Amino acid sequence: MIYLDNAASTPVHEKVIEEMVPYFREQYGNPSSIHRHGRFANMAIQNARKRIASLINAHSNEILVTSGGTESNNTAIYGIASQSKGKHIITSSIEHDAILEPCKRLEKEGYMISFLPVDRYGFVDPEDLKKEISSDTCLITIMYANNEVGTIQSIKEMVQIAREKNVIFHTDAVQAVGKIPVDVKELGVDLLSISSHKINGPKGVGALYIRNGVKISPLILGGGQENGLRSGTENVASIVGFGTACELAKNNMSENSIHLKKLTSKLTTRILQEIPATTLNGHPNMRTPNNTHFTFFGINGEDLIIKLDEHKISASTGSACSVKIQKASHVLKAMGFSHEQVTGSLRLTAGITNTEQEIDETVDTLKKVVQELRAVSPYKSKYNF
Amino acid sequence: MIYLDNAASTPVHEKVIEEMVPYFREQYGNPSSIHRHGRFANMAIQNARKRIASLINAHSNEILVTSGGTESNNTAIYGIASQSKGKHIITSSIEHDAILEPCKRLEKEGYMISFLPVDRYGFVDPEDLKKEISSDTCLITIMYANNEVGTIQSIKEMVQIAREKNVIFHTDAVQAVGKIPVDVKELGVDLLSISSHKINGPKGVGALYIRNGVKISPLILGGGQENGLRSGTENVASIVGFGTACELAKNNMSENSIHLKKLTSKLTTRILQEIPATTLNGHPNMRTPNNTHFTFFGINGEDLIIKLDEHKISASTGSACSVKIQKASHVLKAMGFSHEQVTGSLRLTAGITNTEQEIDETVDTLKKVVQELRAVSPYKSKYNF
Ligand SMILES: Cc1ncc(COP(=O)(O)O)c(C=O)c1O
Ligand SMILES: Cc1ncc(COP(=O)(O)O)c(C=O)c1O
Repeated sequence: MIYLDNAASTPVHEKVIEEMVPYFREQYGNPSSIHRHGRFANMAIQNARKRIASLINAHSNEILVTSGGTESNNTAIYGIASQSKGKHIITSSIEHDAILEPCKRLEKEGYMISFLPVDRYGFVDPEDLKKEISSDTCLITIMYANNEVGTIQSIKEMVQIAREKNVIFHTDAVQAVGKIPVDVKELGVDLLSISSHKINGPKGVGALYIRNGVKISPLILGGGQENGLRSGTENVASIVGFGTACELAKNNMSENSIHLKKLTSKLTTRILQEIPATTLNGHPNMRTPNNTHFTFFGINGEDLIIKLDEHKISASTGSACSVKIQKASHVLKAMGFSHEQVTGSLRLTAGITNTEQEIDETVDTLKKVVQELRAVSPYKSKYNF
Repeated sequence: MIYLDNAASTPVHEKVIEEMVPYFREQYGNPSSIHRHGRFANMAIQNARKRIASLINAHSNEILVTSGGTESNNTAIYGIASQSKGKHIITSSIEHDAILEPCKRLEKEGYMISFLPVDRYGFVDPEDLKKEISSDTCLITIMYANNEVGTIQSIKEMVQIAREKNVIFHTDAVQAVGKIPVDVKELGVDLLSISSHKINGPKGVGALYIRNGVKISPLILGGGQENGLRSGTENVASIVGFGTACELAKNNMSENSIHLKKLTSKLTTRILQEIPATTLNGHPNMRTPNNTHFTFFGINGEDLIIKLDEHKISASTGSACSVKIQKASHVLKAMGFSHEQVTGSLRLTAGITNTEQEIDETVDTLKKVVQELRAVSPYKSKYNF
């Protein structure tokens, strides 16, 4: 079995599992309890918080632990909107649904939402952002790296623009953190979302970086955990695992990056050379090291995935973090792709456990199945396959 | 080390750990992915959902998986309030903060909240509920079993009253499910909250039972997971573990109940017989089998916990699922307790892993430390200790 869908989710690192298990078996206390079982659990989450913070160069008191990237994004959007006077939010047209859907709900409640366009590489033009800001703008939320095509935005430049106008800036960095260096202090962002299961940590845990001084209201109320910003008994084992995953990601970042780039370069080079009528989507360089995204003209990406799956290769058409898999990609549409370009798309995202041999096997299989599918394609004559 | 704070959190059952680990290591797919890694993960959560449903006699499509009891409660309250015309909610004065705080937020937003009183055992009188319902009432939320004193309410009777007036009924059953038989069909409730970590499952996962036909709006938006009612990549391993915990709780319920009652009876009998000026709080019979809650007159519960902790016994003053541990218990105050009764309180909650020997050791230690503390108590002469 070859798993090339690491942008959807990743295997949990052995060291992460190892560090989590004691928190199921022995250190099962509630971190709010004052006895030693509680104190051990509390120490563990404080230690994990430091590791999470360290990966993005934040202070540990700037890390709000959540149940994942989706909750982090929801908390950022509602948490700022609900306490701002302004009723205008700026986002991009290629955000994850965990940004778009909360924005659309606010739109129904009377907020104005601007969805910035992108170019054919999936880039937001900072000049477009500048023009869109008004005195009513309360929040700008632009993703760091796109989950489908991997394109990395000029976040620092956009934060600069937001700063000048005194507008809060949030970035969904779920696909960036752990893969490329992300430094919140250097970026100057106010809020930043992370998810554990994208970086070889467990699912169901994530974080929202909240810059010291930024006021936000909670989404979930109760016992007052997480400084009153996120109630609910802390998910100790998962938080510990997330912390370990962050530490590993930090320590192995350059090594992992070299490995991932080697894999994705090989994948890209071989596919473009050996399979005709194929394009690489997203930016040629400004992309996350693990992402590749192609269009195979004349065929349907979903058929391709099913065929690959029969050969025990796990791939994706684009976003996997949405149950609405049948929906044509809003990201590719926003990039100006034709219907044919959209439907023929395939995302292959490498992970730290993948090998060069797996990449070669994948390309060999891909060549075969693309040929098979094209042999029965209605576009057969158009491309002269 | 003796752990007698099982109402705060519980050790994760070995079988639960065993069934979770493969979902970190091998079956790490995103359940929304269409390839086999995704399908395996999806099958696992559907299977777990059946087990969760089965514990409370629900259909599996009535189970909304959340990040815990707190999120379940928040979802129930906001999810109903936000789509109801009525602006009146009825709850009790002894609810967990995960109910009280969302209610108080709604109160600030213009809702009217009735906090029903309780008697000295912590009982809500169903007649009080009946009187409080108006045409504006959109939700009744009364807890099943109290987390401090263990008192079990007459939920079925109150649901009957709600039904007659066509009002949605939610119960926070976090402390009841898995300990006493809970059957949603027999109760007739519309919504019911559960938490995994109270029944030897992992932390950070829970469920909201939503009766088929009941409409509720989501708290967290995004990819549309959980039928659009709770977005975010599903916490597969934890959901699997929660499912296993539910199955174990169901299969071993009577056996566990006998064991827990044996432990708590011994604890109660010995404490009341051997330590003077001590009362058992909550109802003598209508209480969860694992709960004991005492007042030791003349001393401070927190001092007691610290002393017990020095003897490696983990206990609690009351709610542990709140970081506001210094706050005097609103539950005991609502039960009409005097300041002295409140401050001298100690909760000892047994779990399936506790032994009779641990109970004996605990009582022996307790006798000693209560005596020590009373020797320096300002109430010394009052009670003639
Ligand atoms: C860019 C982006 N944002 C947010 C999310 C949601 O995070 P989570 O899966 O932790 O809910 C994902 C993936 O699911 C993502 O790729
Ligand atoms: C009665 C009750 N409701 C809700 C909760 C909150 O559940 P969770 O800890 O899963 O957030 C708890 C305990 O924490 C509880 O005892």
